[in-house]
Amino acid sequence: MTLPLSVPLSSRLRDVRGSAIRDLLALTARPEVISLAGGLPGTDLLPRERVAAALAAAVADPSAVQYGETAGLRRLREVVAAHESERLGRALDADGVVVTSGSQQALDLVARAVLDPGDPVVVEDPVYVGALQVFQAAGAALHPVPVDDDGMVVDVLAARLAAGLRPRLVHTVASYHNPRGATLSPSRRAALAELADRYGFLVVEDDPYGLLAFDSAPPVPVAAYGGRVVRLGSASKVLAPALRVGWLSAPAELLAAVERLKQCTDLCTSSLTQIVAADLLADRAWFAAHLDALRAALRERAAALTGAVRAAFGTAVTCSTPAGGMFCWLEFTDGTRPAELLPRALEHGVGFVPGTAFAVDRDLSGAARLCFASNPPAQLHSAVQRLEAAWRTTAS
Amino acid sequence: MTLPLSVPLSSRLRDVRGSAIRDLLALTARPEVISLAGGLPGTDLLPRERVAAALAAAVADPSAVQYGETAGLRRLREVVAAHESERLGRALDADGVVVTSGSQQALDLVARAVLDPGDPVVVEDPVYVGALQVFQAAGAALHPVPVDDDGMVVDVLAARLAAGLRPRLVHTVASYHNPRGATLSPSRRAALAELADRYGFLVVEDDPYGLLAFDSAPPVPVAAYGGRVVRLGSASKVLAPALRVGWLSAPAELLAAVERLKQCTDLCTSSLTQIVAADLLADRAWFAAHLDALRAALRERAAALTGAVRAAFGTAVTCSTPAGGMFCWLEFTDGTRPAELLPRALEHGVGFVPGTAFAVDRDLSGAARLCFASNPPAQLHSAVQRLEAAWRTTAS
Repeated sequence: MTLPLSVPLSSRLRDVRGSAIRDLLALTARPEVISLAGGLPGTDLLPRERVAAALAAAVADPSAVQYGETAGLRRLREVVAAHESERLGRALDADGVVVTSGSQQALDLVARAVLDPGDPVVVEDPVYVGALQVFQAAGAALHPVPVDDDGMVVDVLAARLAAGLRPRLVHTVASYHNPRGATLSPSRRAALAELADRYGFLVVEDDPYGLLAFDSAPPVPVAAYGGRVVRLGSASKVLAPALRVGWLSAPAELLAAVERLKQCTDLCTSSLTQIVAADLLADRAWFAAHLDALRAALRERAAALTGAVRAAFGTAVTCSTPAGGMFCWLEFTDGTRPAELLPRALEHGVGFVPGTAFAVDRDLSGAARLCFASNPPAQLHSAVQRLEAAWRTTAS
Repeated sequence: MTLPLSVPLSSRLRDVRGSAIRDLLALTARPEVISLAGGLPGTDLLPRERVAAALAAAVADPSAVQYGETAGLRRLREVVAAHESERLGRALDADGVVVTSGSQQALDLVARAVLDPGDPVVVEDPVYVGALQVFQAAGAALHPVPVDDDGMVVDVLAARLAAGLRPRLVHTVASYHNPRGATLSPSRRAALAELADRYGFLVVEDDPYGLLAFDSAPPVPVAAYGGRVVRLGSASKVLAPALRVGWLSAPAELLAAVERLKQCTDLCTSSLTQIVAADLLADRAWFAAHLDALRAALRERAAALTGAVRAAFGTAVTCSTPAGGMFCWLEFTDGTRPAELLPRALEHGVGFVPGTAFAVDRDLSGAARLCFASNPPAQLHSAVQRLEAAWRTTAS
């Protein structure tokens, strides 16, 4: 029983879009459905035995079950700083890192620390829905900039800035974009960092997928191109989501503000899971081998999914070619509307997310996001067969 | 290295008081200092071996390391609902509970869901600083009501309401108050619930300590007296803080809003630690025995601390008589100002929190909060000896 009481809610809450993806997860959780919908790393690819061993070792220390410092476990901040220094090509120390409960919390705290209601914020279109929700909850005025095969179209942003737009923040999933799969090109990264300096905004570089490069080194972070970049990272896609460990690096003043807000929000992240994350990230040989295996598995899954899609749909679909990350982006060229296809697809036992769920201003009614990370190749083949069957039924 | 960049911050952040307690923890973390400052359960009292066993069992399930539902693990919601039903004396089911990353997150999400900037909120004085920070971050207009030996002085609240105050929320740590140690009397609980119905506000009953009753059954919750009560609970004080598991029960509409905001804030709480919390709370025989041992240890510690304080300070101090929870409240009657005593106390190797850290409007410059939970009796005796020595030095 819940109470039937009517509670007046905050006016800003009305602006927060529900996540169609999270709602979909309820439907796709049925065992007979193969889900390409969630942004879940493959459960079979998570290093569960290594996590179990690290947990067993961690809990031997009494302080592992106690409260910890709000800014995070010192040792984890050190190992994250070491990893980040390598990515950035410049030294970052532990004081430049704050640990959060997943990178989603880092994004929420940055938004709360920086934004007043009505402040302009640039988001990508299509957008990571979790970012859209954060900025809506902060009462921001959203200014979408389109994403194409090379990531955010920075020329469009430059034109808006030249026309007078003065955002506080520009949010980007620059590497292996969610949902678009695209990666911001080096020249666009340089241009974005230069615009941030020129116009005085902060770039929030949301980077949970950067290490999941299939065939190359991870993309050079936007933060390597300039100083006005907050970087968000996460253990969820490279270790395990249930650790709920993320982090950010940012200017000192902003880090201090984030730490103060984190006190309000959850006091601290779990000492236990921070120890595990620190152990695994500090074990360089193991982590490198694990990442190699993970990247190889994801590359195989991406190839399986895109190959099956191209074989099944031919010219009726254009399909992105993932170079990393977890997502493939489809655009139907035959007039199919994925939002209308979805109910039939679920009847056929396959789930995905229609592009409309990620649209800010654009018409993405012909697009769909497919996650290739959650299922092994054979399942992905079956999923595409089911999707094709649903499509043929709908089309006829 | 951190970036020297100056970042303009949200105007509301300037209203958020830093936690003097968290700042103090840095000082009291020195190994030679016995800390009565933090609100930490005794590390030696945490059921670390049982947590270790539960972790080892939990991680055998692949889903334990994956993302989970935003509202929380179904089984944990069920077991919390069962416990809450017993406390409330009426049936609550799993849909009436949302799991959060500690009860601090529940408080933050409730505030964000309900409050618009400028909305009036009633807080206790002295106040739980984590609540003060949450309401400051939400931009609320704070209306403090004093706490005495029987908890919040509800007559004062009633008079303010009669005079026209119309709060959205009234926050109370009704059982074993932090920092005051007091428990809201049954008649005041009934009066508070009746006022909530009459004036249409929500009571937020923040209850991390209720099960830590020394000699009696836990206090009957305020929520048992009326329907306009949001209850917040936590595994931190009865199992382990590092689980970062809390929960709330609330009207359905508010729970849905909290769940939506939790998507923005951290997507979900750790599946792994939720499984552990569910296992331990569902093991009724073990949990009852553990609670009994915990309550007995806390009772012993409270007696040790208050006995030592009375022996050392005589009539120079009045000292509360804890009936549960973790805190003892001192008021110096000899003109000693604990904020001035503190630096000398730290030199003598003992830390505590001056009452001023918890003051909203009141003059609490003669008061201090001492936590008896973190240290065994012998340490508490030493701590009070050190405090007495510092006091005698200061007084001379």
